[in-house]
Order: sequence, then structure tokens, then C-alpha cells
Amino acid sequence: MAAIADTAAPAESAVAYFEGEATAPEWLEKAAGQVEAFVAASDEVLTVVVTSGGTMVPLERRTVRFVDNFSTGTRGSRSAEAFLAAGYRVVFLHRAGSKRPYLSQMSMEALFDADGPGALVETGDGSLLVPNESPVVACVRARRAAKASGMLLEIPFVTVEDYLWLLRRVAQCVESLGARAMMYLAAAVSDYYVPTAAMPEHKIQSSAEALVLELEPVPKMLGALHAEWAPAALVVSFKLETDAALVEAKARRAIAKYGVNLVVANRLDNRNELVHVVHADASRPVVDVSPGAPGEPIEIQLVQTLKAEHEAFVRNS
Amino acid sequence: MAAIADTAAPAESAVAYFEGEATAPEWLEKAAGQVEAFVAASDEVLTVVVTSGGTMVPLERRTVRFVDNFSTGTRGSRSAEAFLAAGYRVVFLHRAGSKRPYLSQMSMEALFDADGPGALVETGDGSLLVPNESPVVACVRARRAAKASGMLLEIPFVTVEDYLWLLRRVAQCVESLGARAMMYLAAAVSDYYVPTAAMPEHKIQSSAEALVLELEPVPKMLGALHAEWAPAALVVSFKLETDAALVEAKARRAIAKYGVNLVVANRLDNRNELVHVVHADASRPVVDVSPGAPGEPIEIQLVQTLKAEHEAFVRNS
Repeated sequence: MAAIADTAAPAESAVAYFEGEATAPEWLEKAAGQVEAFVAASDEVLTVVVTSGGTMVPLERRTVRFVDNFSTGTRGSRSAEAFLAAGYRVVFLHRAGSKRPYLSQMSMEALFDADGPGALVETGDGSLLVPNESPVVACVRARRAAKASGMLLEIPFVTVEDYLWLLRRVAQCVESLGARAMMYLAAAVSDYYVPTAAMPEHKIQSSAEALVLELEPVPKMLGALHAEWAPAALVVSFKLETDAALVEAKARRAIAKYGVNLVVANRLDNRNELVHVVHADASRPVVDVSPGAPGEPIEIQLVQTLKAEHEAFVRNS
Repeated sequence: MAAIADTAAPAESAVAYFEGEATAPEWLEKAAGQVEAFVAASDEVLTVVVTSGGTMVPLERRTVRFVDNFSTGTRGSRSAEAFLAAGYRVVFLHRAGSKRPYLSQMSMEALFDADGPGALVETGDGSLLVPNESPVVACVRARRAAKASGMLLEIPFVTVEDYLWLLRRVAQCVESLGARAMMYLAAAVSDYYVPTAAMPEHKIQSSAEALVLELEPVPKMLGALHAEWAPAALVVSFKLETDAALVEAKARRAIAKYGVNLVVANRLDNRNELVHVVHADASRPVVDVSPGAPGEPIEIQLVQTLKAEHEAFVRNS
């Protein structure tokens, strides 16, 4: 059902995309102002920009149908929690509605249900109580502390074009931090999209026949990110594969092609048990990372591994 | 970017789909057992099956990419609340992760934030409080009451094929209720899909060229629902259009083609201010429904209108 057309244009570079017809989202400069204020307050602390969740590819201007990438934002939100615990300041760029730091471990349903470990308890005077043994309490306090101390800034995006504009602008904002900034690109970014100019205004009408969609490659951001927008930052990208045989080879290819510093490679089916950290220096062995203890999120060990790399990167820069 | 192929097969009927190669989801009979028990306890009360949220169309067997339909589930979850308030028993078939009755009005973020109308309050003894003036309290109690009294049964689905199997099976389960069952089809069901047999096993590999996707029409359920699976039930379907000129004409076409009893027609841009209820009897004028009071969800008036139709339908059957 899927075919690569042999007549299509090659992938546009991100630089060409921004010089072309695309226009910035209205909210971009407001978000950039928030990041600039965040960066200005950063002192000598390490800062990470975490991207998280999937990007949406609208098929119509008034969006009814869209193509999406599977991502709940679990990797990104848990990583943000681990970075905060490791002392980082975190800019969390996330798909609107995907998981967010400390909000992801509990569901509204668990609170609302009449029983269960997180359930709200009737007090008898009309209010409801989260008992101090509930796991919700620690999450609420951790989230409030991260917000109140200014260690966490969250900015949402929806479409892949929103994401492209936001990533570039935020990279430019953190460039003043030099090597102390890490770009941690955990978002599941669409590979193909329909440029706004090529979209129909209204809902595509249904018919009794097949629907043929032709999508263009999304402009490649990684090369421009490293080469132009944040050349001093440590860039960590992700490679998700379902095919075990391709995981490391794809990571090496991304390093060779885009000049990223580290690639976190994993398979879809065991991504919470095993990830591979591949270094740009091919003489460095691949580091396999697993959870530090049964039930502990793998992101805690992953962030420890990356923090050690980041500290060495800062010393060597 | 979208084209209707002129060589493709016509839309398969739902009957042919179920007689073909498709296989039922593993969890289907467990869900059917829940619905059967629910129906067995229903006495003379009116019952509605509400479908809600969008359906996912996987493009790969191990799903990374998918096509999706925009739907938060707001219409369906608010309608379910309105049906419960109007005395209905509700089977709520919803896209996993979309909005659900009484859970949809508050967000975890509002609870977790340090201030704001829904914020959890520190008690000083280690626990957290939802104060009795919070809007959360009424939602928690309404949800618990609906669950405890057995008036609400929720069953999730994800893919469009899950949805097809679930809708057919649930329709068969409520058929014993005769005219006292309403099928209220608010879910945003995909028009096109990739049959499981046509899917690649692994993630589609990216390339520098365009991606061409060919999707087949989703088997049409409405005709079989009315004609075969639940012929005695009142069937209410929805027509969402972005183009104002097409709204009523599309509703009339659905009635003529599939034999549904009522169509709720609306536009995407004002769907919370105005909907049109179109009756199968073309001599009956279209009923325009708006919110009963400023700020009141339109679904309260819509459900009142449909309940009156349903009561007449029961009397006449």
C-alpha cells in the first residue's frame, strides 16, 4: 500500500524550507520570548531542550484528517523528570496533549475511580482528599517545585511545521549557552508531510474508490541544527526501528549524515528495557543502557549516561 | 496532494468485510460479555450506545505511522453525560485516550498546578485536598454514581477495524432491547484504511523521495447496522462537514442510502453552537438545536430532542 514515487523531488534541506514560502506560526515569538527569559536565568547550570511526542501532518487546511506518528510522550516526559532530578534546567517542547513531566504517572481515571491506589477519598465535609500515601502527592509536589523554581519550561506544538519552526527558534535561543546546552530530540517527527500550500481547503470528499495520498519528505532538521542554529550545543538524536538488524546501522548513518554528537537507538518492542547510546566517535564502543533496578524507568540510567557525556563535552569545548 | 484513483474497487459492504479475511480482535468476546450483562440488567429504561472519538488507521503492522481522524471525543463524552442526566443507560464505545464522561472537564494539569480553580490544596498534614467548591467534586461524584449504579459501561477501541468489529457485536447485543435501544454514532470513523493483509510488517523506510499511500474505502457499516445487526434500534448518525453548503444535503443522502432514522448534521467551525437534526421522514422539518443557555453544552438540548424522538419511536414500534 505504500510506494516511494520515483519522480519526486529530493528532501528539501531545512535551510531551503525556511527561505521558501513557509510562514512562521503566530505564537512563535511569544514562545521564543519565554525561552530567552529562561536562558537568561540559567547561570552555570546545564540546560537541556527535550522534544517529546509525535507531530501531526494535516491533510486538509481545516484539519479533519491527518497522518500522525505513534508517540505517547512517555520517553520524553520521563526523560524530562530524570533531567530535572539530575540537576538540569529543562525546556520541554511537547506535542499538545502528550505526556508531561510528573503528570504522566497518574490518570484522571485513577483519581476519579471509587477505589484503587490513587483514588480521591471522601472526607465527609464535602471535599475530597488525596491521602499522603498516594503516589499523586509526590508527583504534585515535584511538578510544583520544578515550576516554582523555574527549572521547567513547557511549550506545546501540534503540526510538523509548528515543530520545525519551534525547534529552530529554540536552538537559536539556547546557542548563547554554548556547550552547556543539550538538544535531546526524543519527539517522533513525521518523515513525510503535505506542505500547507498543497493542501485542499475543505475536507477531502469520500468516494467509493481508493484514496491516493502523495506526501513529500519533511525537510531534514538535524544537519542545520548542528551546523547552523546551535553549533556549540550537544545534539542527541533518537532512532526508533522495529527491525533489530537496522538499529545500529541507522544510528551510524545519522551521525555521518547530520553530524549529531550522540544517537540513542532502540527498537519499538523493547524500548523500555534496552537502548543503545552510539557516539559520534566511532572508536567509542556503543553503550547499552538498561533500567538501574526492576521497575525503575530506563530514562534514569539513560540520562546519567548522557550527563557524563555532556560534562566531558563541556570540559573539552 | 490527494486524488481519487479511478481504477480502484468500490467500497466493500460491511457484510462482505466480515465474511472475508478479517479476523476479530482477541478482546471482542470479553467486551461482548460485558455488554450482554449490561443489557440483561436494563429493565424498561432507555439504553443508548454512544460511539466517540476518532479511529486510527495503522499504515504498518507494528504501528509507528498511522492516519487519524481529528476528534477529541468532546461531543461523545458530553453527550454521554447528557444521556445519563436524562435517565438513559449508556454503553460508551470510545477511542482509547479520548475524552470520557465526567473526566473531560478537568485536566491533570489544573489539579497539579499550584493555583487556579481546580488546584489541589496542601493540608499541612501531608495530604492534598480537593476543596468542596472545586468543580472536580461534582464530576467525581457524578462519575462514581454512574459507575456504581451500573448506568455506564465504557469500552475502548483504537483502530478502525477494532471499531467495525465492536460496533457490529454491540449492535447484536442490544438488539434484544428492540426499540428501547438507540445507536448514537458520534465517533469520527475513518473513510479510508489499509487492510491488515496489505500492510508492511515493519516501519516504512524513509527516503529522499515522495511517499505515495493508497488507502481503500472503509466498509460501510450504517446500512448493515440498520438492516441486519440492530434493525429494531433507533439509529442516529452524524455528518460533519466543513463546507456549509453540503451539510443538509449530505445528511439526506445518508438517510436515503443507509436507512438511518436521524442524522445530526453540523459544521466543524460552529459545532458547539448549532446542529441540525434531520429526520428520515422528509416531510418533517429539520430541527435546529442550540445551547439552552450561554455556556451550557449544546449536547443537553440535543439529547432532549433525541429523547423525545426516541420515546415516540418506542410508542410507534
